[in-house]
Amino acid sequence: MLPRDEAFNFLLFCVRNPQPCPILDVLEPGQTEPTIAPGADLRTDLPRYCIFKNGQLKEEVEDVTAIFNENMVCFLLGCSFSFENAMLAAGLPIRNIEENKNVSMYITRIPCKPAGPFSSMLVVTMRPMTPKQAIRAVQVTTRFHLAHGAPVHIGSPEAIGIKDLNRPEFGDPVTIRDGEIPLFWACGVTSQLAATSIPLPLVITHAPGHMFVSDLRDEDLTVL
Amino acid sequence: MLPRDEAFNFLLFCVRNPQPCPILDVLEPGQTEPTIAPGADLRTDLPRYCIFKNGQLKEEVEDVTAIFNENMVCFLLGCSFSFENAMLAAGLPIRNIEENKNVSMYITRIPCKPAGPFSSMLVVTMRPMTPKQAIRAVQVTTRFHLAHGAPVHIGSPEAIGIKDLNRPEFGDPVTIRDGEIPLFWACGVTSQLAATSIPLPLVITHAPGHMFVSDLRDEDLTVL
Repeated sequence: MLPRDEAFNFLLFCVRNPQPCPILDVLEPGQTEPTIAPGADLRTDLPRYCIFKNGQLKEEVEDVTAIFNENMVCFLLGCSFSFENAMLAAGLPIRNIEENKNVSMYITRIPCKPAGPFSSMLVVTMRPMTPKQAIRAVQVTTRFHLAHGAPVHIGSPEAIGIKDLNRPEFGDPVTIRDGEIPLFWACGVTSQLAATSIPLPLVITHAPGHMFVSDLRDEDLTVL
Repeated sequence: MLPRDEAFNFLLFCVRNPQPCPILDVLEPGQTEPTIAPGADLRTDLPRYCIFKNGQLKEEVEDVTAIFNENMVCFLLGCSFSFENAMLAAGLPIRNIEENKNVSMYITRIPCKPAGPFSSMLVVTMRPMTPKQAIRAVQVTTRFHLAHGAPVHIGSPEAIGIKDLNRPEFGDPVTIRDGEIPLFWACGVTSQLAATSIPLPLVITHAPGHMFVSDLRDEDLTVL
């Protein structure tokens, strides 16, 4: 959620960077009921929010009714959690689920395409698996283009600017077993870095790992 | 191309209606060099333009340098012509090419999702083929999600509000042979109806059938 004055530029940022920012819904200024979840209220129905002022994180809250105003525009972006059912159905491991942790997220050195004043490095999620499983994971996730789609990188973390897989910028580290390689998918947290890359008076985001659950089915996020 | 004051709402219209309006590029106000065609100038490099004032078509021209201004925002949307090579490679007939005509375009009774002041009925292109070919055409075009993707309708024109296939609203009528059924794909002309659904002081579009050719390859418009 951010002020209407920058809504066009932010929407442009999402359009130019569809892998980290797959757009599921954008509401008109002041509106809080998504078309993808009729009856919901985005001011109250996320489990946890982050409130940024002038680009700085000020607090985490569970309700933003008091701070939301008619000037704010809500954006809903797809999440890689939406392809996890399909991955599990294909027999692929999701280590963070196995270990009951949040997925590991890293800030890479891959620049997104800027739009107006907004810019960001690409944030990625990481899931480790064997090379054979990695090939299947590319196939399974490709069709979920509205849930970040295929991986953006496989293998060497250094090649995309990640120094230590055990120290993710967001979420938790997970075990990487012998013979496994890391797979990296574009992550919606990228949009939060972009939205806070300039000192807007107010930006409200979901807290990492505390996403909004819409009425869409996983299959609604696929191209085929 | 339309004024920046309505650029957010129009971008929203495209985002909410991705089948007729697949976004390939959106430029910042006053810019005319697309990222998908470096070195091009959108004021001169289309073969023909339509100029609308207050929602009314005023003239068709081959250069808009004199009328374009710093206030205008350029949108580039995908075109079904971009999947025609793949259809031909699959041995599918494209009747309008066979008959050296422009594709048939119709205004349906299917409403698009509105955004701000913009609204439109869905415009479709039509290509006739046998049922067996139709199944293959669905397969071939599905992956071209940035060129309108899979058909939106197969068979009865009446079901989507088309009264007479021999009288398209845009383009030319084509022959439908015995045993063939019409296939309908979403068409980018929808965006022109939306952009002119309110009386904006200036809207510039390509003339139907006179599209801009970018540097993208057909394969860049596919999801897999």
